[in-house]
Amino acid sequence: MTHPLSCAVIGGGAWGTAIADRLVRNGHRVTIWAREQDVVEAINARHENPRFLPNVALAPGLTASSDIGVALRDAGLVVYAAPSHVLRAVVASCAGSIAPGAVLSVATKGIERETLALMTDVVAQEAIGHAVVAVSGPSFAAEVAQGQPTAVVAACASHDAAKLVQAAMSAAAFRVYTSDDVVGVELGGALKNVMAVATGILDGLGLGYNPRAALMTRGLAEMTRLGVSLGARAETFAGLAGLGDLVLTCTGALSRNRALGVAIGQGQSLDEALAGKDSVAEGVLNAQSAKALADRAGVEMPIIDATYRILFEGQAPREAVTELMARELRAERD
Amino acid sequence: MTHPLSCAVIGGGAWGTAIADRLVRNGHRVTIWAREQDVVEAINARHENPRFLPNVALAPGLTASSDIGVALRDAGLVVYAAPSHVLRAVVASCAGSIAPGAVLSVATKGIERETLALMTDVVAQEAIGHAVVAVSGPSFAAEVAQGQPTAVVAACASHDAAKLVQAAMSAAAFRVYTSDDVVGVELGGALKNVMAVATGILDGLGLGYNPRAALMTRGLAEMTRLGVSLGARAETFAGLAGLGDLVLTCTGALSRNRALGVAIGQGQSLDEALAGKDSVAEGVLNAQSAKALADRAGVEMPIIDATYRILFEGQAPREAVTELMARELRAERD
Repeated sequence: MTHPLSCAVIGGGAWGTAIADRLVRNGHRVTIWAREQDVVEAINARHENPRFLPNVALAPGLTASSDIGVALRDAGLVVYAAPSHVLRAVVASCAGSIAPGAVLSVATKGIERETLALMTDVVAQEAIGHAVVAVSGPSFAAEVAQGQPTAVVAACASHDAAKLVQAAMSAAAFRVYTSDDVVGVELGGALKNVMAVATGILDGLGLGYNPRAALMTRGLAEMTRLGVSLGARAETFAGLAGLGDLVLTCTGALSRNRALGVAIGQGQSLDEALAGKDSVAEGVLNAQSAKALADRAGVEMPIIDATYRILFEGQAPREAVTELMARELRAERD
Repeated sequence: MTHPLSCAVIGGGAWGTAIADRLVRNGHRVTIWAREQDVVEAINARHENPRFLPNVALAPGLTASSDIGVALRDAGLVVYAAPSHVLRAVVASCAGSIAPGAVLSVATKGIERETLALMTDVVAQEAIGHAVVAVSGPSFAAEVAQGQPTAVVAACASHDAAKLVQAAMSAAAFRVYTSDDVVGVELGGALKNVMAVATGILDGLGLGYNPRAALMTRGLAEMTRLGVSLGARAETFAGLAGLGDLVLTCTGALSRNRALGVAIGQGQSLDEALAGKDSVAEGVLNAQSAKALADRAGVEMPIIDATYRILFEGQAPREAVTELMARELRAERD
């Protein structure tokens, strides 16, 4: 337990709400900004967020605001948890309200589609002069809110900033490790969504545990290859933000990404699988970004490629799996 | 497809039977040795092994024998798939019948309790002068027999021997990678059973996906630490025989190891959980061997230690989990 901070959490979705709740329970003063008026009212009046984090009693001390400037006022720690495709606009809209010296933390996972920038880069570009800490790891928001034992990573080039986030968020059942490998931590969180779609496709084809385990292992290997080519360390991908989050997303409760993969594996086209959904699964967007990143870096990513071909080029899932298995036999290290 | 070999598979359990079937389907002449007369008769008369691999139609060309010398006669490839605690006796009983120049392969996973030897060492000590190849990876036998896409590793200091096993076993849906890291490949397969017990304990305590993902990640980290201290390469643990098999065992169909962990997590003692079982789960034996190995090597393995304390020293599972989470916060790499 560190001395109390003023904190702003930007984004009232499940993850933002769970982090805000965690910070309040550590004794910090926290205001969460939510775009939706009903979320703000439910948090302030009833200490709950039934829209995004149902059946959870939030800490009574948590306050919400629909005014982002109010949320940011005097905050020494800002946590961004807005969706990846709006993060840049949200940060830019209120960069002038950030207190001098505030540490910025990013709980959003993803790769910006137009620029292929990671989320910490997006924040750093729009809010200049602050340390930016990526927080990632295997953490279903509802389980964090329930107090299930959870371990995540706080990554920043500045060790002091990472330690500040670690001290602010840690609790008996919420363990925060520090890292200086921001690229590795962020790529793990973004690329695992593509692997979740791929895992769902295997499920949709009726395949078993052996192929799922092989897919996850070879998938982590290609995630690692891309990360290393972009300056990350291989061991980060063997850690919580790589392997940990991959395991959670590919074998935990059915996520939107995996559910979409199941539909595709069962024979639906991407358009059919998306029909009636009000948002696109992150894994679909990330498949495009990951393929673009890999192409630019000249890195071979057969599983990402196969997922892309299935989603966007109409390849039959079973044919893609057969092709993956038929790749020339060789040593595992290659 | 390579030119046909004469092969002996020593052990008529699920995994030995699935490998024998795989070899026959590749055109090899295969005799499987089984201790149980009913298994020998069922394979020879009806091409099935209902005792250990039910509901699978085996390749008609597979023959079985209860005479280990008959099985070994002229075999250029021998695959050992006997249980770990009897492997040494089985190999010793027939070492003189092995054909000169035969390549020996070991599908058994485990650490010998009395000597802390790996299975390839046990075979090499009892059948001197042959290359010994470890075969490991995420491979439920029933799924291999069903033709589910599966990927494993064949590891040997002799690349030629590893290539021979790769060529003999590979098929469109059974991909065999080669490796020269025998220690890493073998330790992955043995230690993952302890992690499966630990995962079951979490389940028995009613814990969720976040703690399971954290346990598997930190568990693989300590498996890697022990392996590296014994001469293995870290990257092997990120591969099929490490991460892959860990994922399969901790998240796939409920294994005997996980089921035992569940009972312990729900409050049973080890004696209670084992009562009425005709065999001890490998993970229980391996927890003892792994702890002994780690103590000898001076390597810190908090999850293995906690599992050992719960199984053999009566520590309450919830207390052990709380202690694990309370370890001093630090950087993930440490």
